[in-house]
Amino acid sequence: MDLTEKITERAKEFFADSKGSHDWDHTLRVYNTCMHIGRKENADMEILKIAAILHDIGREHQDKHNGKYCHAEQGAILAKKLLSEFQMDENKISRIIHCIETHRFRGSLIPESREAKILFDADKLDSIGAVGIGRAFLFAGEIGAKLHDKNVDIETTESYSRDDTCYREYLVKLRYVKERMQTNEGRRIAEERHNFMVEFFNRLNREIEGNL
Amino acid sequence: MDLTEKITERAKEFFADSKGSHDWDHTLRVYNTCMHIGRKENADMEILKIAAILHDIGREHQDKHNGKYCHAEQGAILAKKLLSEFQMDENKISRIIHCIETHRFRGSLIPESREAKILFDADKLDSIGAVGIGRAFLFAGEIGAKLHDKNVDIETTESYSRDDTCYREYLVKLRYVKERMQTNEGRRIAEERHNFMVEFFNRLNREIEGNL
Repeated sequence: MDLTEKITERAKEFFADSKGSHDWDHTLRVYNTCMHIGRKENADMEILKIAAILHDIGREHQDKHNGKYCHAEQGAILAKKLLSEFQMDENKISRIIHCIETHRFRGSLIPESREAKILFDADKLDSIGAVGIGRAFLFAGEIGAKLHDKNVDIETTESYSRDDTCYREYLVKLRYVKERMQTNEGRRIAEERHNFMVEFFNRLNREIEGNL
Repeated sequence: MDLTEKITERAKEFFADSKGSHDWDHTLRVYNTCMHIGRKENADMEILKIAAILHDIGREHQDKHNGKYCHAEQGAILAKKLLSEFQMDENKISRIIHCIETHRFRGSLIPESREAKILFDADKLDSIGAVGIGRAFLFAGEIGAKLHDKNVDIETTESYSRDDTCYREYLVKLRYVKERMQTNEGRRIAEERHNFMVEFFNRLNREIEGNL
């Protein structure tokens, strides 16, 4: 086993009890998208691979506490500890940690390096398009939210509540994802996936109203 | 309050603890679709209205026992008891009960009356198209299933398991819905919603493979 494989095996352990919307499969999708964008943007692929593999290991901690902790901050702490066990170069570790701690959409830290920008884009792309719609409904099911309310008021309703539907997530976050992209290739894919989401919700509303 | 409103109030009580994929909103959508198809097919609207309102009151019983009981049979028993409290004509009751006990896709009883056929179609239409996709992902989240596996083997995987994804539900049931429609208007809507599901899953697979 090479270093990346060893880290992958360790990373998987953090997903033993994970829910479907943020499980190990999400990490694999983000990894694949990172590889795609990374090649186009001449990234340091070793840094990018390890950052992608480890980017969500703090997720369970956030979910267990109903969103009280930031999984990016928590993931950076866990990743630093894990990587130090492999006698990795301190500079490499800090470049990887920078990617992990800045990957969150709602986070306060900004991705500065090329690899951090690519991880940010790949992670966000997994929240839009058909895959994003599927994940948002799945997450709504996990927290006991209802199917849909086209008139949901995002100001008076709360996350992790029965009103925290896929469509609310679209209004609060998903519709803005394309504006936050950090790389050219990320932006191109985001535009295309965004248009599909718009089409999906238009259709959903018309079906529910009985017009389709 | 007229009779339908009184029955509606009683019916709602059965959904106090219901999950999003089969909650009271589902009943309202089915009711609207019944009204739409019923007008086109010259149905007895009183029978159809009450049947639509009561069709899923046995759902919680089925869900609480992980699918061991049939919610259509259970719903028919509960509805009979409820309607007899309103001194309703025995013939009307039995026509309503026929609709409820035959509305299940996997059920053994066949819808014979016009109203039963319409309720069957309206209920099934709510499981396909954009609304069907949303509901199937929501249900997958509720039972702790994962997001997607395009190679899922429906023979070796089980319902109510981690493998019981939206796509598995599509392969097992949703892709056949259009062939089961009982009315002309139901068939027309089903064809159209079916095509959107095909498009959605094609897109989902391409996104996950990193090709879109």
